[in-house]
Amino acid sequence: MEPKLAKLGHIAIVTPDLEKSHWFFHDVVGLNVQKKETNKIYYRGWADFEHHTLILIEGNEAQLDHIAWKTEKPEHVDMFKKKLNDAGFNTWDVQPGEEAGLGYAFRFKLPTGQIYEIYYEMEKPPAPEALKSRLKNQVFKSFNQGISPRCIDHVNYNVGNPDEAMKFHEEMFGFKSRECIELDNGMRVAHWTSVTSLVHDLAIMHDPENRQNRLHHIAFYLDSFQDVARAADIYREHGIELNVAPGKHGVTQASFIYAKDPGSGIRLELFSGGYHIYDPDWETVVWKENELADGIIWWGPELKSDFLPDSVGPAS
Amino acid sequence: MEPKLAKLGHIAIVTPDLEKSHWFFHDVVGLNVQKKETNKIYYRGWADFEHHTLILIEGNEAQLDHIAWKTEKPEHVDMFKKKLNDAGFNTWDVQPGEEAGLGYAFRFKLPTGQIYEIYYEMEKPPAPEALKSRLKNQVFKSFNQGISPRCIDHVNYNVGNPDEAMKFHEEMFGFKSRECIELDNGMRVAHWTSVTSLVHDLAIMHDPENRQNRLHHIAFYLDSFQDVARAADIYREHGIELNVAPGKHGVTQASFIYAKDPGSGIRLELFSGGYHIYDPDWETVVWKENELADGIIWWGPELKSDFLPDSVGPAS
Amino acid sequence: MEPKLAKLGHIAIVTPDLEKSHWFFHDVVGLNVQKKETNKIYYRGWADFEHHTLILIEGNEAQLDHIAWKTEKPEHVDMFKKKLNDAGFNTWDVQPGEEAGLGYAFRFKLPTGQIYEIYYEMEKPPAPEALKSRLKNQVFKSFNQGISPRCIDHVNYNVGNPDEAMKFHEEMFGFKSRECIELDNGMRVAHWTSVTSLVHDLAIMHDPENRQNRLHHIAFYLDSFQDVARAADIYREHGIELNVAPGKHGVTQASFIYAKDPGSGIRLELFSGGYHIYDPDWETVVWKENELADGIIWWGPELKSDFLPDSVGPAS
Amino acid sequence: MEPKLAKLGHIAIVTPDLEKSHWFFHDVVGLNVQKKETNKIYYRGWADFEHHTLILIEGNEAQLDHIAWKTEKPEHVDMFKKKLNDAGFNTWDVQPGEEAGLGYAFRFKLPTGQIYEIYYEMEKPPAPEALKSRLKNQVFKSFNQGISPRCIDHVNYNVGNPDEAMKFHEEMFGFKSRECIELDNGMRVAHWTSVTSLVHDLAIMHDPENRQNRLHHIAFYLDSFQDVARAADIYREHGIELNVAPGKHGVTQASFIYAKDPGSGIRLELFSGGYHIYDPDWETVVWKENELADGIIWWGPELKSDFLPDSVGPAS
Repeated sequence: MEPKLAKLGHIAIVTPDLEKSHWFFHDVVGLNVQKKETNKIYYRGWADFEHHTLILIEGNEAQLDHIAWKTEKPEHVDMFKKKLNDAGFNTWDVQPGEEAGLGYAFRFKLPTGQIYEIYYEMEKPPAPEALKSRLKNQVFKSFNQGISPRCIDHVNYNVGNPDEAMKFHEEMFGFKSRECIELDNGMRVAHWTSVTSLVHDLAIMHDPENRQNRLHHIAFYLDSFQDVARAADIYREHGIELNVAPGKHGVTQASFIYAKDPGSGIRLELFSGGYHIYDPDWETVVWKENELADGIIWWGPELKSDFLPDSVGPAS
Repeated sequence: MEPKLAKLGHIAIVTPDLEKSHWFFHDVVGLNVQKKETNKIYYRGWADFEHHTLILIEGNEAQLDHIAWKTEKPEHVDMFKKKLNDAGFNTWDVQPGEEAGLGYAFRFKLPTGQIYEIYYEMEKPPAPEALKSRLKNQVFKSFNQGISPRCIDHVNYNVGNPDEAMKFHEEMFGFKSRECIELDNGMRVAHWTSVTSLVHDLAIMHDPENRQNRLHHIAFYLDSFQDVARAADIYREHGIELNVAPGKHGVTQASFIYAKDPGSGIRLELFSGGYHIYDPDWETVVWKENELADGIIWWGPELKSDFLPDSVGPAS
Repeated sequence: MEPKLAKLGHIAIVTPDLEKSHWFFHDVVGLNVQKKETNKIYYRGWADFEHHTLILIEGNEAQLDHIAWKTEKPEHVDMFKKKLNDAGFNTWDVQPGEEAGLGYAFRFKLPTGQIYEIYYEMEKPPAPEALKSRLKNQVFKSFNQGISPRCIDHVNYNVGNPDEAMKFHEEMFGFKSRECIELDNGMRVAHWTSVTSLVHDLAIMHDPENRQNRLHHIAFYLDSFQDVARAADIYREHGIELNVAPGKHGVTQASFIYAKDPGSGIRLELFSGGYHIYDPDWETVVWKENELADGIIWWGPELKSDFLPDSVGPAS
Repeated sequence: MEPKLAKLGHIAIVTPDLEKSHWFFHDVVGLNVQKKETNKIYYRGWADFEHHTLILIEGNEAQLDHIAWKTEKPEHVDMFKKKLNDAGFNTWDVQPGEEAGLGYAFRFKLPTGQIYEIYYEMEKPPAPEALKSRLKNQVFKSFNQGISPRCIDHVNYNVGNPDEAMKFHEEMFGFKSRECIELDNGMRVAHWTSVTSLVHDLAIMHDPENRQNRLHHIAFYLDSFQDVARAADIYREHGIELNVAPGKHGVTQASFIYAKDPGSGIRLELFSGGYHIYDPDWETVVWKENELADGIIWWGPELKSDFLPDSVGPAS
């Protein structure tokens, strides 16, 4: 039997200015602090059950640190480890205490340079009493600070060859390409892919310079387009530049707003709505080159040519 | 290997007044007509990909006709058939032409009287040109008629013993109880249960008179609470009584509005928001007797004692 | 030439528990504090330009202290004073320092016991730097704390004879009855009345025990129904009982939510939408007795018989 | 005593393709048809009480036909006529039957070329039974067709010298400049001005080529930003290009979406939210040249240099 991934667990990013990034993600965006360590802060949205869905790590250069995926069953962690080792990948275990809240887990490096963490066990601590929701099925009070997103949604990174990366994710982890963009030359330059019913837990986009490990954005979820508009108000009041103004994607049908963390330059998408795919016989929706603009922005700001390659990470 | 269900496919209900029910579901609610047959109409929301998600059948008495579940793989249909037969259930195949759009499928009767249909194959016809969405990943134009819900969401029925019914669904089909209500005497009188990431594809509630096959409501999805408010306006303008006014459930965290189809008396919930469960280690959220009211209505209209047992179906 | 009122300026109320009322109006509702004095706090919404729109005064018994109306021109203050004196009313000037931010103003007592303040001059201080909006036409940042309403909207009180009170307001101050409820016996038991384009700056409702100076509620404005839903979430998270759950009025067409300040028992309505009347030839919309329920609540919670007379103020 | 204007009554525009313009304003936007004449159609929003708020007239060239302003009192029509005649303006009466629903009224031409109509009497017909709202204070059912705006909001045109035009409106009709844009050279290139509590019934903007009678856009009101988003969806589904995508103005604080009627090329703004000015001592908010972009678009699409002068009307 094949091991399976259950969901995107969390994203860890490196910021050269932890204080400023904290101001952005906590004061402005309103993520809840779960734990502070020297040079590291753990956050989650008000409806994220696990210990953390975002980790900020202070470091020299803004970049992705790792992306963590939770398995469907405890034994799948070792099954994935074996599958990866058999395929020639080096894996290493996360050391006890290295990541708060986490149980047994290992990491490995993708052919495109990203570090993935595979885990099943993660603490699900309740919120501190003062911030605790009065709803039994919710962790923190909502709308307590800043924009206040519900939960983690997805991650989007650029690589040289999205089709190869897609194939790797499909074969190794069972990701399905839900929607994609296909150029006239046949090259598929972007895949929206998931292991859940979401259109994407992960988007993989082409970097025009064929750089491999470039982080395009991370995304958290808002409950409505009115919340997206409220986010725009709050961003502007705090002097945060809207990197891409509110609008609606064609791909995913979701509404969005993008802004960059001034501490790291990493882009945060706040994402709302969209659709879910429960059909096992789903066929990838293929947007052709002349449909690309509609796919990226169905309505909203004009799509600029420098949006798609604008990313952070290692130079090559 | 165990067969699996992928999703709730559609609901078929019997109405004594098809014309009036059609006026309600099409003109007021705004579901799209896929096909009309003598005494039978097939509908779907603007984002429902399969041929139909609701069937209205003219008949003597308002009641549930059947609930259809799509399997994860084609071969799971026969695997479920065998599993049911082995457990002593009688199953019968849906005859060619009996249900438009449907491929190979069988039906059986639950211990509590409901007919379930198990299928994998279903046509996914595009919308007629005039009603076709210009979005590649959407079927019909949205907001073309009436309230205009996105897609099917869930079904809710009453039985004598929800715990027994839950156990049956768990063992036979792998449903998980996501949230439930437990009385002080230990009886679990309501389960919200799913095979998808939704908190529920199906809710099973206790009927105080222990009747077995009572339909409480069917539900379609709206994209926002503003759409729920717009639905209230449209209902009132069309003289439709709000059976339960807009509000927010504690269980599921979703906003809602209920109205009854004047043709059949069957209750339709329009449902928006809520949360998804991607955690494989989810533990059922248990609402105690003194939390029941908050669970059913977190804010909104007062919960009336006759709401939960108010259902349609066979008298006993 | 007749003097004119320009708008409802502010409302001052007495609370027996200033600390708890402050928690409600500031921490939960999110009004901005303009000034604190011993036993008195001045507040305003993020878009209220004048020094204050709400004053909380600590005192023995919860009640209305006064309602302030701004005149169209500076000289109208004295013109109203003379008009009132000529009609036999006693008037007295507000003493310098008695009310912060206020210029020349006088007060008088209505035949029904309420104290009105008539003024033109009021400071329009900018917000403190940290709370100041970056928008030139807005005072405070919005969504900075709690529910965060935009501005004052209206006040609603009960008297023995609303028709007499309406006549007084019309003749003395030029208020127009925009909508009213008329019983089958011909008695008009409620008037929604304004000097602005709002359907009401003031509602005057009948008290069934013919008590004269009963405060029914004060109201602030929210920008959308989504904000009303967000208010419901925030109220419930803070343990505030929803006195009347979200819904939509027939009269005014506005959406609403009501909660009581736990310090004073005074009811706050958060109000959104509605319509404006720019027609000088507007004819009062008359809701008949059998239309009363639709007028009060077009959709939302059921109208309870004790809602309309439930008020605070002197016992008789 | 000075005569006064009460409100913007309606706007009449000329379209070279009445059929296509009707498809846009009726089928897509969802304005209600009040009356059809040869080459002329009268429309209004679902909450517009008077006979019409928009007239489409078939003609050779797309342009403004006239803008109608309702006076505060019947006798003000003649008072304005005399005032205009005294100032050397030629006025002419609207002939009986020339404009449906209209009573006594006259027209005149502004120094900048626009035709204004001054009237008091206008029929307020109820909606046809099938379209009639069940709300006593509302005319048509809302959300019955297309986007379905509530009511007329404002008109915006370009002239050579907005300051002169503002002065004319102030002296002749009592308009107040609520907000304006002032270049570094001291020239005020845009005024948002009103006779009501709205920030603007009328905006007057500079045409860089000093053309005098250029129509920039007409505007109708939507109840929420969610409705603006829904408008974007409906526009795109009908193949209507978004001339300016959804966003929020700094000036007025309102959210917006712009599209052009494909029959006439005339731009329609759908406008929601914003603030009202009840303060008689309001001081014009002056946006400086370096604040212009924020004033026009607080968040949303980038402001393009060709947006402000892009208008229809006579060539010079």
